[in-house]
Amino acid sequence: MSDVLSTKESHVDVLIVGAGPAGLMLANWLSRCGVVTRIVDKRGTKIFNGQADGLQCRTLEIFDSFDIAHRAWNESNHMLEVCLWNPDEHGVLRRSNRMADTSPGISRFQQVVLHQGRIERFFLDSIRAHSDITVERGVLPTSFQFDDSKASDVGDYPITVTLRTLSEAVATVAQRQQHHKSVDGTQEVVSDGLFRSNLVADDTEDLIRKATNDAESVETVRAKFMVGCDGAHSWVRHQVGFRLEGDSTDYVWGVLDIIPITDFPDIRHRCAIHSVNSGSVMVIPRENKLVRLYIQLKETERGQGGKADRSSITPEIILQHAQRIIHPYKLDYSYCDWWTAYQIGQRVGDHFSLRDRVFLAGDAVHTHSPKAGQGMNVSMQDTYNLGWKIAHVVNGYSEGSILKTYESERRQVACDLINFDHRFSRLFSGRPAKDLMDEQGVSMEEFKDALEKSRGFASGIAVKYGASVIVAKTEDLADQENGTDVRVSSAISKPHLATGIDVGKRMPSFKVLNQSDARPWHLQELLKSNGRWRLIVFPGQLTKPENMQRLQQLGTKLGSSDSFIRQYTPSCQTIDSVIEVLTVHAGPRADVELLDLPDILHPYDERTGWDYWKVFVDDKSYHEGHGEAYASYGIDPTRGASVILRPDQHVSWVGEMDDYDEMSKFFSGFMKPQ
Amino acid sequence: MSDVLSTKESHVDVLIVGAGPAGLMLANWLSRCGVVTRIVDKRGTKIFNGQADGLQCRTLEIFDSFDIAHRAWNESNHMLEVCLWNPDEHGVLRRSNRMADTSPGISRFQQVVLHQGRIERFFLDSIRAHSDITVERGVLPTSFQFDDSKASDVGDYPITVTLRTLSEAVATVAQRQQHHKSVDGTQEVVSDGLFRSNLVADDTEDLIRKATNDAESVETVRAKFMVGCDGAHSWVRHQVGFRLEGDSTDYVWGVLDIIPITDFPDIRHRCAIHSVNSGSVMVIPRENKLVRLYIQLKETERGQGGKADRSSITPEIILQHAQRIIHPYKLDYSYCDWWTAYQIGQRVGDHFSLRDRVFLAGDAVHTHSPKAGQGMNVSMQDTYNLGWKIAHVVNGYSEGSILKTYESERRQVACDLINFDHRFSRLFSGRPAKDLMDEQGVSMEEFKDALEKSRGFASGIAVKYGASVIVAKTEDLADQENGTDVRVSSAISKPHLATGIDVGKRMPSFKVLNQSDARPWHLQELLKSNGRWRLIVFPGQLTKPENMQRLQQLGTKLGSSDSFIRQYTPSCQTIDSVIEVLTVHAGPRADVELLDLPDILHPYDERTGWDYWKVFVDDKSYHEGHGEAYASYGIDPTRGASVILRPDQHVSWVGEMDDYDEMSKFFSGFMKPQ
Repeated sequence: MSDVLSTKESHVDVLIVGAGPAGLMLANWLSRCGVVTRIVDKRGTKIFNGQADGLQCRTLEIFDSFDIAHRAWNESNHMLEVCLWNPDEHGVLRRSNRMADTSPGISRFQQVVLHQGRIERFFLDSIRAHSDITVERGVLPTSFQFDDSKASDVGDYPITVTLRTLSEAVATVAQRQQHHKSVDGTQEVVSDGLFRSNLVADDTEDLIRKATNDAESVETVRAKFMVGCDGAHSWVRHQVGFRLEGDSTDYVWGVLDIIPITDFPDIRHRCAIHSVNSGSVMVIPRENKLVRLYIQLKETERGQGGKADRSSITPEIILQHAQRIIHPYKLDYSYCDWWTAYQIGQRVGDHFSLRDRVFLAGDAVHTHSPKAGQGMNVSMQDTYNLGWKIAHVVNGYSEGSILKTYESERRQVACDLINFDHRFSRLFSGRPAKDLMDEQGVSMEEFKDALEKSRGFASGIAVKYGASVIVAKTEDLADQENGTDVRVSSAISKPHLATGIDVGKRMPSFKVLNQSDARPWHLQELLKSNGRWRLIVFPGQLTKPENMQRLQQLGTKLGSSDSFIRQYTPSCQTIDSVIEVLTVHAGPRADVELLDLPDILHPYDERTGWDYWKVFVDDKSYHEGHGEAYASYGIDPTRGASVILRPDQHVSWVGEMDDYDEMSKFFSGFMKPQ
Repeated sequence: MSDVLSTKESHVDVLIVGAGPAGLMLANWLSRCGVVTRIVDKRGTKIFNGQADGLQCRTLEIFDSFDIAHRAWNESNHMLEVCLWNPDEHGVLRRSNRMADTSPGISRFQQVVLHQGRIERFFLDSIRAHSDITVERGVLPTSFQFDDSKASDVGDYPITVTLRTLSEAVATVAQRQQHHKSVDGTQEVVSDGLFRSNLVADDTEDLIRKATNDAESVETVRAKFMVGCDGAHSWVRHQVGFRLEGDSTDYVWGVLDIIPITDFPDIRHRCAIHSVNSGSVMVIPRENKLVRLYIQLKETERGQGGKADRSSITPEIILQHAQRIIHPYKLDYSYCDWWTAYQIGQRVGDHFSLRDRVFLAGDAVHTHSPKAGQGMNVSMQDTYNLGWKIAHVVNGYSEGSILKTYESERRQVACDLINFDHRFSRLFSGRPAKDLMDEQGVSMEEFKDALEKSRGFASGIAVKYGASVIVAKTEDLADQENGTDVRVSSAISKPHLATGIDVGKRMPSFKVLNQSDARPWHLQELLKSNGRWRLIVFPGQLTKPENMQRLQQLGTKLGSSDSFIRQYTPSCQTIDSVIEVLTVHAGPRADVELLDLPDILHPYDERTGWDYWKVFVDDKSYHEGHGEAYASYGIDPTRGASVILRPDQHVSWVGEMDDYDEMSKFFSGFMKPQ
């Protein structure tokens, strides 16, 4: 049938394959940057239940930079405490420890849990509010060509993809239906997540075959860039010939999303429960009274090739395992929202990019166990890293060289994730040690230590990008995980000027006050994801004449008609649209008047007057205390410092408050004069 | 034409006339309580600009109880500081004082400013999410009959109203259009708010005449209750024959909503600016870079009857006055969003209700100057007071006697408002005193003191309802403002058991932790406006055996099949649906297990298990400090206390933690056994 269809042709800056969290995060970024984007997904509908995941602090910070964090924060369940339950000396289950789930002080958010379908909804609403981009569902790429000769010109279209629109029947995957336990004798059905479990064969090949015979329309798309956000069985990865490297373990886990009926005291805390001999349970309390249980299935039959036999797994079997582990407490349910089972596998892609034109992100380049609540977060953070880079290259602000940093930065994170998950899974799946001499068992002290240490990693805050043209540091060039040829910046940071700020990490956030209206803001709230670079000037105490003088001199250079800010900003755009200057002085607020500061720090517009939203102060607020920003950032208020931030809030450079030349040198490494 | 239209007839529990903030607040309340409601407005469209107002702390607390506060909080401009500007000894304008706009500590919100149209939008979205109620626009009541013989049976329909649907042309009021100042020579137009100013005659009579000739449909509605939220020219008030009492002053004020172009340093703070001889300006910074200026017009021509001549007032004239007052600072604009002018009048209705069947609310019973930012707040709080009372009577939970408290409670507030506004307007409109001997001028010290003292009143938090059947107190029976025969409760409060809680005021809010998941909540966040009464048990330290014993005894009584909770709750509803029991113990959290507490404090449901969201603790949180709730409420943790809260968060009764008999006596004063 396909050959009788007329084949449309179109051009696009970016083609995104896959509309899960990674693909939607990318589409969302591009929607804010005016990039011509299409996003397709082979499934006919978005998901409606199951697939929950924890949201890390860092993910919530990123959401907030897109103005959607409040929706996740309000709807989600907040996890405050982790409780460890282990057999006591008599083999009876006891609470052995309580600790904070999120380390206090690392972020203004804490880890929460929310159904993935809601998160996708927030992205869809956000994309619609900022662009004409819509997710094209039931659309499948079926062929791929790459013209290597066009790859070096970022304005050209080296990628050719055939897209086929599936008929609705083909795009809608049948789910197995399970009968629902019910107290009143009526039977309801509950979704079965096995259709997306790694225990079930992928259906992409099958869909392509059907699409070739049965597509409702066919289209040829030529793209400058393509990003595969299409999951562990990634079609895009297969096309570019990359591989996932790593192994599956023997551990098989069942997952139940239920409203629990139980006398277990900590059912609304995150719990790691180790039984003597029956395996482990992870308790993840969720929204809407739901609790997710990850349950170790000790005696599952294995089929050929080491894969567990899916036909033997039912919600009743999973519940029975849980009941044995949680004994002597009782556990049952009337309502089950979703269930699945999976086998842990830890794998990382050997490459993340083909000539910086085709990229892979999310499950397409790293798979691991879901219990640590990392998967969706790391996937979204992949494309959060990539989105602004593609946008800046497409929009002509940046040279293509910045795209190399995607692989150098994100492959390191993926390897760290897999190492973390490997260690954590082993400890969590292991049988508790009977005593000090029991070397095969897991010491509960060791498990607790691992859990405590993992919190920094699990928060997403600890991610620190290596040296590159967009991260000016010298200390850890050797740390780069891969062979990508990443150029480094010729600008040199002076990290001792801001000892609380790590070059390469995301900028920490403390409260500062708007100079003009005394309103307190978390600094991060000022760093919206709108594609702008930011120079944050910390001039120190402006009551010191030498500080005011240095600031005036900096202001003169930044404000001049040949400054790097003006040089890299298209003349038709406002002066803050590519590199925005923010100022945070050391106070007191009442001793400084905005209009005494250089104009470039509060630019004038002839229709709207002065800009009152760019100068801030580290001072006491009326209602929310003192942010102590200078002390927390480790900046000397008698000397000051300046910081350059990437559009994704990561720190690029730290230097002297008025070191205009180093700032200029930094940007000259990759920006294109307009 | 009307007599050829077929006349529909319908019955409704509540007919609301007027869909401004007061009417929408009421419809919103009733949408949460399942009351059959209609709301009509004579205007064909909602408003789109102008009509801004401050939102008090208390209004935001109320919004939060309906889950809409975050929208107002995020979109609004936050006012943190008030600055006073006065002539110095040389007659030159100087900043003489800064102070917090909202007194620190009185609420978890601070005063903000947002366009009324957005607030109406939040209500409309909320109403739609909870009911089928829709605002019927361009619909005008044209006749009213009241059958006194039906007024004593709350199930009967004593009210008959004819509603006429206007043609679109008639319902859309013509606004005067003003040319817009523009830097590039193009001319834009700006809305003129005079059409709703009190300088323009009301058009209701005119509309009724047109409607009688030209209505597109006519309908007869029979209602149990009717509420007039139809503004200063209230048609409902005229029908029931009540009057507004009070006077207009000579002060005429202009209002400009502009994006200011100025070198005045405090343009983003609320400012009260007194010039030597040119009058006063109030600066109210708003959202979207706008600033509202209230500008005293000293030399406006008066027409007949003391009303200012509207034809002499233009935005240019108002701006010129502002420029004289703010001299030597410069003030201009390119963009003007809206403007109007008004003459201050302070009036209060002589009655608020006809036989507790027809009620008046908002501007229909109190008018005053807008500068204090009170109008919209007090209007919405009128119907927030009234909504749950009507709902409880309609739903058969309560006797009709509670409706009398609407007038006794809200007329007092209206009188307080008018007195406040009278004093504040006089001080603000007056010329600054030249020296101590200048008795005609206003002393700036006096003005500052008045402003400081006014903050409690202006926050809305200070409102304290008098003794009645639903407020059990004895201390201030004599304070009731009016002759309404309000019965009092036979239950007796013991206010010394909770010295931080005022019987009759709204419950103060401090942070407490959920016992089951350690999540911190502001206590007020637990008090959603869903129509429930609440008993909050503060049992003190449960590690003290006598406290645990008293709690167990209370639990036994509350949980028994003949308890007052069971008695007043329809048997088909959940046990917490009319009177919800919340517990806040004194900690530590880790020393108490939820399931050791009486079942009634965490009710069991056979489909969803135990209720984990009703028991809280006063303890330190992991990330948000210690709420110190017992200390702040003035409750002795070795003894405890109990508190009964109305569905509108006002405190009804304070007594011994386990004083079941007084609790029961309180509810027996007005609740109906089911």
